[in-house]
Amino acid sequence: MKSDHKMRLAAYYNPTGHHVASWRHPRAEADAPTNIKHYVDIARTAERAKFDLIFLADGNAMREANMEALCRSVQFVAHFEPLTLLSALAMVTEKIGLVATASTSWNAPYHIARKFASLDHISGGRAGWNIVTSQQDAEARNFSQEHAYEHADRYDRAREVVKIVLGLWDSWDDDAFVCNKDSGIYFDPTKVHILNHKSERYRVRGPLNVPRPLQGYPLLVQAGGSNDGRETAAQFAEATFSPHLNISDAKEYYDDVKRRMVKYGRDPEHMKILPGLSVIVRSTEKEANADFELLQSFIHPMVAREILSTMLGEIDLSGYSFDEPLPDLPDNDSGHYVSILAMARKENLTIRQLGMRVAGARGKNVIKGTPDQVVDYMEEWFLKGACDGFTIMPPYIPGALDDFCELVVPELQRRGLFRTEYEGRTLREHLGIPRPASQYASRRSRAAE
Amino acid sequence: MKSDHKMRLAAYYNPTGHHVASWRHPRAEADAPTNIKHYVDIARTAERAKFDLIFLADGNAMREANMEALCRSVQFVAHFEPLTLLSALAMVTEKIGLVATASTSWNAPYHIARKFASLDHISGGRAGWNIVTSQQDAEARNFSQEHAYEHADRYDRAREVVKIVLGLWDSWDDDAFVCNKDSGIYFDPTKVHILNHKSERYRVRGPLNVPRPLQGYPLLVQAGGSNDGRETAAQFAEATFSPHLNISDAKEYYDDVKRRMVKYGRDPEHMKILPGLSVIVRSTEKEANADFELLQSFIHPMVAREILSTMLGEIDLSGYSFDEPLPDLPDNDSGHYVSILAMARKENLTIRQLGMRVAGARGKNVIKGTPDQVVDYMEEWFLKGACDGFTIMPPYIPGALDDFCELVVPELQRRGLFRTEYEGRTLREHLGIPRPASQYASRRSRAAE
Ligand SMILES: Cc1cc2nc3c(=O)[nH]c(=O)nc-3n(C[C@H](O)[C@H](O)[C@H](O)COP(=O)(O)O)c2cc1C
Ligand SMILES: Cc1cc2nc3c(=O)[nH]c(=O)nc-3n(C[C@H](O)[C@H](O)[C@H](O)COP(=O)(O)O)c2cc1C
Repeated sequence: MKSDHKMRLAAYYNPTGHHVASWRHPRAEADAPTNIKHYVDIARTAERAKFDLIFLADGNAMREANMEALCRSVQFVAHFEPLTLLSALAMVTEKIGLVATASTSWNAPYHIARKFASLDHISGGRAGWNIVTSQQDAEARNFSQEHAYEHADRYDRAREVVKIVLGLWDSWDDDAFVCNKDSGIYFDPTKVHILNHKSERYRVRGPLNVPRPLQGYPLLVQAGGSNDGRETAAQFAEATFSPHLNISDAKEYYDDVKRRMVKYGRDPEHMKILPGLSVIVRSTEKEANADFELLQSFIHPMVAREILSTMLGEIDLSGYSFDEPLPDLPDNDSGHYVSILAMARKENLTIRQLGMRVAGARGKNVIKGTPDQVVDYMEEWFLKGACDGFTIMPPYIPGALDDFCELVVPELQRRGLFRTEYEGRTLREHLGIPRPASQYASRRSRAAE
Repeated sequence: MKSDHKMRLAAYYNPTGHHVASWRHPRAEADAPTNIKHYVDIARTAERAKFDLIFLADGNAMREANMEALCRSVQFVAHFEPLTLLSALAMVTEKIGLVATASTSWNAPYHIARKFASLDHISGGRAGWNIVTSQQDAEARNFSQEHAYEHADRYDRAREVVKIVLGLWDSWDDDAFVCNKDSGIYFDPTKVHILNHKSERYRVRGPLNVPRPLQGYPLLVQAGGSNDGRETAAQFAEATFSPHLNISDAKEYYDDVKRRMVKYGRDPEHMKILPGLSVIVRSTEKEANADFELLQSFIHPMVAREILSTMLGEIDLSGYSFDEPLPDLPDNDSGHYVSILAMARKENLTIRQLGMRVAGARGKNVIKGTPDQVVDYMEEWFLKGACDGFTIMPPYIPGALDDFCELVVPELQRRGLFRTEYEGRTLREHLGIPRPASQYASRRSRAAE
């Protein structure tokens, strides 16, 4: 059991929410993707509720889908770039952590190091980097390539890029800048380090032209379920957003990743595992269910079929009627294929029914109910050691976020499961994850032994 | 003579100021490079004075110099990354334009397009891009290359990158996002455009995953004196920061660049030429001179000699005594070589004296005097058609910026040379430069003719 025994909460924001038809909900802000006022409001909402951090996902392309489905959808179409957005939000918040996604496939390590270091200084030590490898060919095509890198290659690159970025963040010792007007010395020249990284893929000399981040390193975040993904998490990640749908899968992941940390000499407490949870909470179960049905009613059948196709592993369903059952399909190694097929056969669902079912959750863990029901659920996962807290994914924003903050957070606090005030100042302090020493500092102390 | 006959003013901020020893001045903020409060203050100061824009220079490396000189210096050592910084400043200002530098050599066009589009939305239409080609080998070495690209190649790349970025900004028509909750249509699929740019250097498919910038395109800014630089400016730039030291050179540049615009079908009014000007202003000439001498007294001889070496075209002077005259030197094609040599011979200066002289200005146009003297000078350049305004480069910050805003701006306003209130809302509106139509809009209207 953790020492302070409190959950950590991340607020994962898609512009209008995580439900595929979120933007049509009366309590969603339809023009959210480039409405800065909307983001200011929802950042402050999460900070008032004492969330540990805000998290923004990202991709470097418009999502690929057939146009008839895409034009009814807001997810990954066009929206603020997350780093510029979080910098802006740093100025209208004081405590909450700010985690942006950046791809190790499509960003030069020098730029990643620089921008996150800068955000860390601007925000007073609240930056985090969600490390992703980018699986979409659509992204590759915006960077002069045809295809995303292969899975193993992607993770090899990710590990190398992380290593370079950490090295660049250590370019300057914490006390390198003396700024002494009398002596005229601006920095201590013995406290700057040239990285000189050289491999087949990258030659990066350094030093970084930003002082060492306030947090030492911005928080390292990751979300990857494969063996490579778990291994990378165990090696580097200080928080993970895991996608498990039930407590036993979540606990398997939790125990596995924390066990893997040991071989990298890491303390399992120094990673917070925060499974995603999409919550619809109302004072009665009936209202919560009705709200979910309202969201479902906004899904166009075309969108439902598109998502079903994708989740079955890019199987083309456009030739079939909406009101037929799913046809016999070739086998497929998509993670969702088996469970979706089982659901379809068991309940004898039409393509339309199955599509709506799948589209409403899209692989997320969705829970609807009263404040007590939601908190019971969260408490069980937490106390049984399936997580260190949750990544809250409001199905529509701001409405469902407001509900969570007004109804769930106070109950979590009442039960002593969540903070009532920020204890620290930096994101690492919120999460209880120590500030890393520079790799040069440990070399120095080893040399002195 | 321009229709509204008002100067435009840009505030060009180096963290602690443009004088090489700026940071040691009692009225400079020594820890400015990562002090966000300092930047908030100076952004608001420029906005109160109704400056058109703030400009941040940038490079992707620590400056290369010998360590004994470098460690006494703050310029291009370690500081905020400009785009993350300007996003933050967008939230604490309302009207002033925000121009950041980004290199066409070391940034993927998709990232440039995305980040500036995002900043333009965040700031309500106040973003500008200073297009630079990056001459330093030190930058190349942070991006897996040994050397900066050759001059002509750099400008070829710059033109191609600008073309791609403009194309990406046009990915979405201005009215593409209908966000109609009733019909369920989020965007009009006929209003998204796939760029599909293909060349030997770049293959960029698009569309950009950010809606068209509020200004159509963020303002395009450039500063390059060579023939290629002028040609690129004439083709694209809507503002230039030119570095001329006297009115006749400035006028030659002004007339030449505006003349070149015509062959690209552009209206010469649609570019504002803003020569750099470093101002020390005090109520008396004596005080102004004393303030400059104070700054000069802070320059370490090592720093002076380093800058002298650089400006003579990387000639090593470390073997000579500070108190000897300049030795006979091999010829050199650096832009400053001839004038510095002439100055040295004419006044028979020692290396120390010459170094201090050169280091105090570093190729900038420095003017010291009373408010009337400064405004007379600026008025003459403006009325004689040598410029459309100025890029003010405070020698130390915040002190010399405060002086300029308190003493010079009111006198400019009294003479009717500068605005007393912002007339518009966007950076383009401040400068009187029209919002560009999408390239697809003009194709459509041509097709309809
Ligand atoms: C909660 C969550 C958030 C994610 N956010 C992003 C993201 O913003 N951008 C992205 O490219 N991938 C994102 N991913 C995808 C993961 O980075 C990873 O590629 C995916 O989970 C597949 O894992 P694997 O490659 O280890 O099989 C996210 C995954 C999860 C579970
Ligand atoms: C006022 C001014 C500001 C500049 N800012 C930058 C900058 O931020 N980053 C950069 O790499 N170069 C900068 N430059 C350099 C120019 O982009 C250009 O490379 C230089 O003036 C040489 O021009 P040329 O290549 O046409 O000969 C600046 C130049 C001037 C005059």
